[in-house]
Amino acid sequence: MVSREQHDRMANAIRFLSMDAVEKANSGHPGLPMGAADIATVLFTRFLKFDAKNPHWPDRDRFILSAGHGSMLLYSLLYLTGYEDMTIEQIKNFRQLGSKTAGHPEYGHATGIETTTGPLGQGISNSVGFALGERIMNAAFGNDLVNHYTYVLAGDGCLMEGVSQEAIALAGHLRLNKLIVFWDNNNISIDGPVSLSDSTDQVARFQASGWNAMHVDGHDPEAIAYAIEAARHSDKPTLIAAKTTIGFGAPTKAGTNKVHGSPLGAEEIAGARKFFNWDSPPFEIPADLLGAWRAAGEAGAKQRTDWEGRLAKTDGKLRAEFERRIAGKLPADFDAVIADYKKKLAVDKPKVATRKSSEMALEVINGAVPETIGGSADLTGSNNTKTSQTKAITRDDYGERYVHYGIREHGMAAAMNGLTLHGGIIPYGGTFMCFTDYARPSMRLASLMGIRSIFVMTHDSIGLGEDGPTHQPVEHLAALRAIPNHNVFRPADATEAAECWQIALESEKTPSTLALTRQNLPAVRTDYVAENLCRLGAYELAAAEGGEAAVTIFATGSEIEIALGARTLLQGHGHPTRVVSVPCFELFFQQSDAYREKIIGKAKIKVAIEAGIRQGWDPIIGTDGIFIGMHGFGASGTIEQLYKHFGITAEDTAKAVEARLHAK
Amino acid sequence: MVSREQHDRMANAIRFLSMDAVEKANSGHPGLPMGAADIATVLFTRFLKFDAKNPHWPDRDRFILSAGHGSMLLYSLLYLTGYEDMTIEQIKNFRQLGSKTAGHPEYGHATGIETTTGPLGQGISNSVGFALGERIMNAAFGNDLVNHYTYVLAGDGCLMEGVSQEAIALAGHLRLNKLIVFWDNNNISIDGPVSLSDSTDQVARFQASGWNAMHVDGHDPEAIAYAIEAARHSDKPTLIAAKTTIGFGAPTKAGTNKVHGSPLGAEEIAGARKFFNWDSPPFEIPADLLGAWRAAGEAGAKQRTDWEGRLAKTDGKLRAEFERRIAGKLPADFDAVIADYKKKLAVDKPKVATRKSSEMALEVINGAVPETIGGSADLTGSNNTKTSQTKAITRDDYGERYVHYGIREHGMAAAMNGLTLHGGIIPYGGTFMCFTDYARPSMRLASLMGIRSIFVMTHDSIGLGEDGPTHQPVEHLAALRAIPNHNVFRPADATEAAECWQIALESEKTPSTLALTRQNLPAVRTDYVAENLCRLGAYELAAAEGGEAAVTIFATGSEIEIALGARTLLQGHGHPTRVVSVPCFELFFQQSDAYREKIIGKAKIKVAIEAGIRQGWDPIIGTDGIFIGMHGFGASGTIEQLYKHFGITAEDTAKAVEARLHAK
Repeated sequence: MVSREQHDRMANAIRFLSMDAVEKANSGHPGLPMGAADIATVLFTRFLKFDAKNPHWPDRDRFILSAGHGSMLLYSLLYLTGYEDMTIEQIKNFRQLGSKTAGHPEYGHATGIETTTGPLGQGISNSVGFALGERIMNAAFGNDLVNHYTYVLAGDGCLMEGVSQEAIALAGHLRLNKLIVFWDNNNISIDGPVSLSDSTDQVARFQASGWNAMHVDGHDPEAIAYAIEAARHSDKPTLIAAKTTIGFGAPTKAGTNKVHGSPLGAEEIAGARKFFNWDSPPFEIPADLLGAWRAAGEAGAKQRTDWEGRLAKTDGKLRAEFERRIAGKLPADFDAVIADYKKKLAVDKPKVATRKSSEMALEVINGAVPETIGGSADLTGSNNTKTSQTKAITRDDYGERYVHYGIREHGMAAAMNGLTLHGGIIPYGGTFMCFTDYARPSMRLASLMGIRSIFVMTHDSIGLGEDGPTHQPVEHLAALRAIPNHNVFRPADATEAAECWQIALESEKTPSTLALTRQNLPAVRTDYVAENLCRLGAYELAAAEGGEAAVTIFATGSEIEIALGARTLLQGHGHPTRVVSVPCFELFFQQSDAYREKIIGKAKIKVAIEAGIRQGWDPIIGTDGIFIGMHGFGASGTIEQLYKHFGITAEDTAKAVEARLHAK
Repeated sequence: MVSREQHDRMANAIRFLSMDAVEKANSGHPGLPMGAADIATVLFTRFLKFDAKNPHWPDRDRFILSAGHGSMLLYSLLYLTGYEDMTIEQIKNFRQLGSKTAGHPEYGHATGIETTTGPLGQGISNSVGFALGERIMNAAFGNDLVNHYTYVLAGDGCLMEGVSQEAIALAGHLRLNKLIVFWDNNNISIDGPVSLSDSTDQVARFQASGWNAMHVDGHDPEAIAYAIEAARHSDKPTLIAAKTTIGFGAPTKAGTNKVHGSPLGAEEIAGARKFFNWDSPPFEIPADLLGAWRAAGEAGAKQRTDWEGRLAKTDGKLRAEFERRIAGKLPADFDAVIADYKKKLAVDKPKVATRKSSEMALEVINGAVPETIGGSADLTGSNNTKTSQTKAITRDDYGERYVHYGIREHGMAAAMNGLTLHGGIIPYGGTFMCFTDYARPSMRLASLMGIRSIFVMTHDSIGLGEDGPTHQPVEHLAALRAIPNHNVFRPADATEAAECWQIALESEKTPSTLALTRQNLPAVRTDYVAENLCRLGAYELAAAEGGEAAVTIFATGSEIEIALGARTLLQGHGHPTRVVSVPCFELFFQQSDAYREKIIGKAKIKVAIEAGIRQGWDPIIGTDGIFIGMHGFGASGTIEQLYKHFGITAEDTAKAVEARLHAK
């Protein structure tokens, strides 16, 4: 039990590290760390289960700074509690190129950063995945191995973002009672008082979503502690609405938007030093105080060693499985399972939609890989994301493997990222491809963090038919391919779907999107090949006959069938034509120059067929290549009408090629 | 006052048109129209102020089908009430290519469709803009000319989407009490019962956001009427949670997800005919019943003629201004105002960030164009969206011109679309460019609808510095350029900013995004040119000296300065180099072949400089062009560090060009 005086000193250590680091960087957000220092101090010194020297301990409590602009709060805590990579030099290099202390907390830069935050609403929405992941892993491995809390610090911005509603509704529905969110209720946003733009009764709002919610004075350590204690015993997730003063201690700027996102300035900091009676120069923490913080950072060591003892005593098979899943490694027989499945497909040659191919692959994968957790944003039957192994997770049973995310694409993607980051889980989730637009902020963060979230996006073109242009992706393949470190797969048949799924599951540091059709497609990979050809990004599917290729047609997914049809027509007219399948641009561009040149080839005429826009295809077909695809939005009609209307047919392709051949 | 029996018959007319059209199309969503027919009948026959023969009457009440998949509800109502373009043939051609009756309601396809819906949550979020637009226009033109309600029918999906929270929080905050939302509370989503994914107390949630909210039996016409009456007298926006049975009347499928998104089948429809005692064959409405509906469609004619009388009596200047704004035409002196401003810029040559250039242009524009309504998602000081003319709109004063949208990028964009669609208003709204990802679903719909919403996106590259990769756009220019019918402007200085704003304001059928810098930039357009050069999309900014151009450097925005610096270096080394500014790809690609060829030119070496990814540039520089830009995510650091680190400098450019020159 720390005295009030000691608490204040400990909290002030956070405040001054934050003020001074922002001042030195001449950039950053001092207001939140100063306002939330009391909350953080109570949480980290009295409740949070962690061991700073063993930051990857799987059963640690998670702390998520959803208000990521307050990054100095987190960096201060990591330094003070003794995370080894968070040195005072890092604090001094806040926001400088190459430091671990980026402007916003970046997952992977420093240990103790559980997720990348900054884009508002993401952390609180990730936290639903963390808290659900804890329950799922608890159901699989028991209280001895998995039993921890997820704490979140969120600001007004996080709560105003719509994704937070998706998140809290899902958390309330699933009764994730080990999720505890502090709302840094400081009444200030960037434009000024929150009352400029919001009048929401947040406590009532959370209660309406099935949460326990309470008000507390965010500068009263005992009140904070009492609230946390109450939250830990609630049977619902808890919102602690903590009334704080932004920039607490800044003599003239506290409680105003002036302290939110700019350095305080020397004078204001001097005033704060006086206010808090803080004599230490910048970046120096009195030894006794640092000692007290370091002791807090080690307080969890015994819990950690106890946990290790329990792990050591765990049944060997269960322990090995736990360790494998936490390490993120697939089961040893995974490749063999996929190989067997591909052999079966070469015999069966199913003519099904790739959304169905995906389901068939998942049926095999979910049987072999127990850590996959499926789900859909209320399009289960359309996305084909549910297999025989996956029954619905409910508030009464976390031992199942399917999440009904509701009509919440963004919240789903954010929760999936949290599931991934928690460890032990590979989440996949579906919606219509067009609604990647809704999920995009979280999909981007998956790419930036380099984590294995798998997005199953069906109805991937005008091929969905009558639902019309609001539902027909046109620009979405290009827009997703634009995101760095994001593999966009568009398989052409069941074999390619299996291969793409295999790559997605193996890609530990890259999220994947599978773009899948509503409509049936023929099998085009009819012979078993051991090699995963999709791993090459592009490969020759049909060679030219009767001489060197005069024409090469590149296509993806549903347009492979059209490419093969066009090839037949062109071959029939005496034009040797090859077809290249391009299931993944990103992987293709990672191949050697020699491979890429070979695949692109030297045919006089290069054509791409894709029922999307041209953007992104030029590096493959050249700026003078022929593009058969979309040039604007789609339309409502039957699939047959639409492909014909937009000129995406074998005949249109052959015609365009022959017109060019005759012109040359 | 219609009898209960007559009400039932009228509602059943909607039900059977919907069932039969979906059946004929073999595609569509019968469940919602059947469930919500009673609500719609009460609303359209007793409350909605409209005149089917004059569908563009500016003071009509607006009806927004947020649950756009229930499009047959709307099409049935438009046919029954006698909208001239909604013939029975259109109903029979539901979801067929070229019909006005697309799968989801498409703005512009048929009159009476106030906004495009289908992507869930959009309609309810548009409606905030409609209701706010009504209040703004009311404040400007008085009760005589503007005084109407906005009614919305939303489903569970709309309420689960996060954007709905942003919308309702804003509507509650602004006390938009003429906004009345029906929630079609049918307990069913696509996956099954809503209880699979949601436990929210929606009435409590809306109340927490400052709404009046009540439960009602959605099949009891008098209860519905009573609720609407109460809502119309509330001083808050109102949610009417109407308990309905999805697919009401379908003998075995009613109340289940089987009736949501598939044709009922002949047997089920026959059962419904029996249940409702409905003898008419498909698409035939008994004459007396059609007559009753048509009468309802004409009931507003007197109100409309009264309104026209009031308009005729309005002061000539005010009337002309009202009519100009409703027609969406800019003031007559607009071009002259911009020309004067450009002349002033040519003298002043300001060295400012383009976000500041944008503000300066807005200062001029807002002085000349009273219909602009500004706003920001809580980044007013950063987006530079507020000018001397724009004070905050509040619940007590709708006569101002600035909306503090709160930290709600998606809700802002959706509300902006509603403001645009309402008529009389040109909205612009700002956030950080990176958060176009949040707003993207609504930005896409602005493009699909072809409406004049203007998105002001500052902090448009790594040039924002220390906030780091979560805030630094990299793929966003490419991703936005991928959206059809969306002009993405990236001005290089104050003159280009003025020109881009001019185009954005003139583009009645195309939304615009302005990508603007945080950092200062020099003036590069230093001589006054009457022509709006940005209208060409790309133009030569600096000619080659000392011979034919050996090098052409294309750049946009902040990289123009770098391009000019590289040109100086290359010219110094004897390489004639020209610089082309490309403020808008979309407009450039709309120019004649001859102009495009001239601008692209024949220089041996073509270079593009843009602090984003390459995707989209190849049509300009060719696949062998040199690209100086980003190849992955950004980083946290000072702007100087970052441009150097990522090799986006004049020196790097000159070096890359000279390496290529020597290689050739």
